[in-house]
Amino acid sequence: MPVLGLDLGGTKLAAALFSEEGAILSKEVASLDGRKGDAVGDLIASVAGRQIRQSPGSVKSVGISVPGIARSKSGTVWVPNIPGWLDYPLVDRIRHVAPGLSVAMDSDRGCCMRGEIWRGNARGCSDAIFLSVGTGIGAGILADGRILRGADDIAGSIGWMALDKPFLDKYVPCGCFEYYSSGDGIARLATDLLREEQAYDGPLGPGLTAHDVFAAYRDGDLIATRVLRECIEYWGMGVANLISIFNPEKVIFGGGVFGPALMFLDDIAAEARKWAQPVSMSRVVFEPSGLDGDAAIYGAGYLALHNAPATL
Amino acid sequence: MPVLGLDLGGTKLAAALFSEEGAILSKEVASLDGRKGDAVGDLIASVAGRQIRQSPGSVKSVGISVPGIARSKSGTVWVPNIPGWLDYPLVDRIRHVAPGLSVAMDSDRGCCMRGEIWRGNARGCSDAIFLSVGTGIGAGILADGRILRGADDIAGSIGWMALDKPFLDKYVPCGCFEYYSSGDGIARLATDLLREEQAYDGPLGPGLTAHDVFAAYRDGDLIATRVLRECIEYWGMGVANLISIFNPEKVIFGGGVFGPALMFLDDIAAEARKWAQPVSMSRVVFEPSGLDGDAAIYGAGYLALHNAPATL
Repeated sequence: MPVLGLDLGGTKLAAALFSEEGAILSKEVASLDGRKGDAVGDLIASVAGRQIRQSPGSVKSVGISVPGIARSKSGTVWVPNIPGWLDYPLVDRIRHVAPGLSVAMDSDRGCCMRGEIWRGNARGCSDAIFLSVGTGIGAGILADGRILRGADDIAGSIGWMALDKPFLDKYVPCGCFEYYSSGDGIARLATDLLREEQAYDGPLGPGLTAHDVFAAYRDGDLIATRVLRECIEYWGMGVANLISIFNPEKVIFGGGVFGPALMFLDDIAAEARKWAQPVSMSRVVFEPSGLDGDAAIYGAGYLALHNAPATL
Repeated sequence: MPVLGLDLGGTKLAAALFSEEGAILSKEVASLDGRKGDAVGDLIASVAGRQIRQSPGSVKSVGISVPGIARSKSGTVWVPNIPGWLDYPLVDRIRHVAPGLSVAMDSDRGCCMRGEIWRGNARGCSDAIFLSVGTGIGAGILADGRILRGADDIAGSIGWMALDKPFLDKYVPCGCFEYYSSGDGIARLATDLLREEQAYDGPLGPGLTAHDVFAAYRDGDLIATRVLRECIEYWGMGVANLISIFNPEKVIFGGGVFGPALMFLDDIAAEARKWAQPVSMSRVVFEPSGLDGDAAIYGAGYLALHNAPATL
């Protein structure tokens, strides 16, 4: 019996019907087009309803990945990118799309980890980390066979990791690790360096993005090289900490930055090897995501499958 | 039906019979007296046998806390402080003490966390951290109702946490966090400062211990104050990282250093508050161990209880 996976992003919604084996039966993507509050709920209900009606088999279970906090006790979500979604009753909104529907949700980082377990590079693992580096930084954590959520569904907020003392006020909005080595962090570091290097005449300039920094790095640009060397150090330290704490079999690198930063996996491993518990470090394997940006929607499908009514 | 808890330390072995409700029915402590290899196994078997024979009810289950790696798959242990215990078959050695005995083991940090869950300050928690700071640093981690062990039973090795870049060679034997803020780290920092401050004429001198540093601090000594301020910063950062990663209900402070460092819990919270994920930080509560140094043996008893044959 098929299940429905939904992946709510900052600007779009993806929906896919999955077979129980994880094959995609149908898929659609809808733009949020600046919708706010209930209008986003209406869009989700409309897309979910259409997918359920056109399913080849009766759909009884839906999983949804959200870019924020998925409060498992209340069924509400906090999604900072959607105005009015401080405590939005998302589970209730989806449950009424079809009679007898079972709805489960988790954060995007938890869903990405699930996707890799189901159909990606964490198949067969009992202990693994999905390190997601995009605009921000987060981790999906599989520990002793279970995805961690924490007491208030905020586990895995590793962008807040303290990696260099003393504390600086600029860490307040996002945390130390994310400040330096998220996609936004890469752009920030490069912008800061440009301000220092008045004589610089390379391709980087005002309004630069992480994408520009990677492009400049490929051409041997010195500022881009300094920025990404610094990021490798932070990524190595952050990953080392997760290895020492969790003793995982695998760390899987995903998000928009991994992506281009996958070329640095050996350098990140070399940095992590300096810091991490040595036995745990010797056991762990680094891999890219096996799902090419689709980890969250596969994970939403897996969440639906595991939350399906017993009759399924 | 009673269970037997054993707590193997670096220099002594404690054994206690527990009722299923966690009352201590009898207890004994034996010194290791420099024993090595099999002689330690013989001592454990002898103490366990005596406790089992004198039990008011039949003992079918034993739990043991070890100061090292308790390999759950092989039943062997690595205990660096006991010569010859690189891969010692501890479960087998204890199993033969009495017919039909079920034996479970875990690291001391995992057992301390279990002790707090059973009879200490983590009762009723589903997510909590036991931060143990003694000669070294480790953490027992309760996540979503389960104690984490990791792929090779080395989870919780937080003494290796990277907290200040760049990497320095002196971190190699024990990790960055432990280098600075374990009991040994406190003594190391004070010794380093003494070398710098030629004019110092306070109570601290060669051969000093963490205990001496705390005593000097109480008398307003400037070197002791600088050392402990630095430790508070590291403890705050380390705890902040655990809070951001796990979103726990409680952090429980134990080990020989907490102890005297419990007077700094408010300062540690203030430091952690700067770094940690703010919602998780606002929810967490800091508490001292509720078991006054006996957390590991209570935890060993709890491990025995949960590993007991179904007939118990």
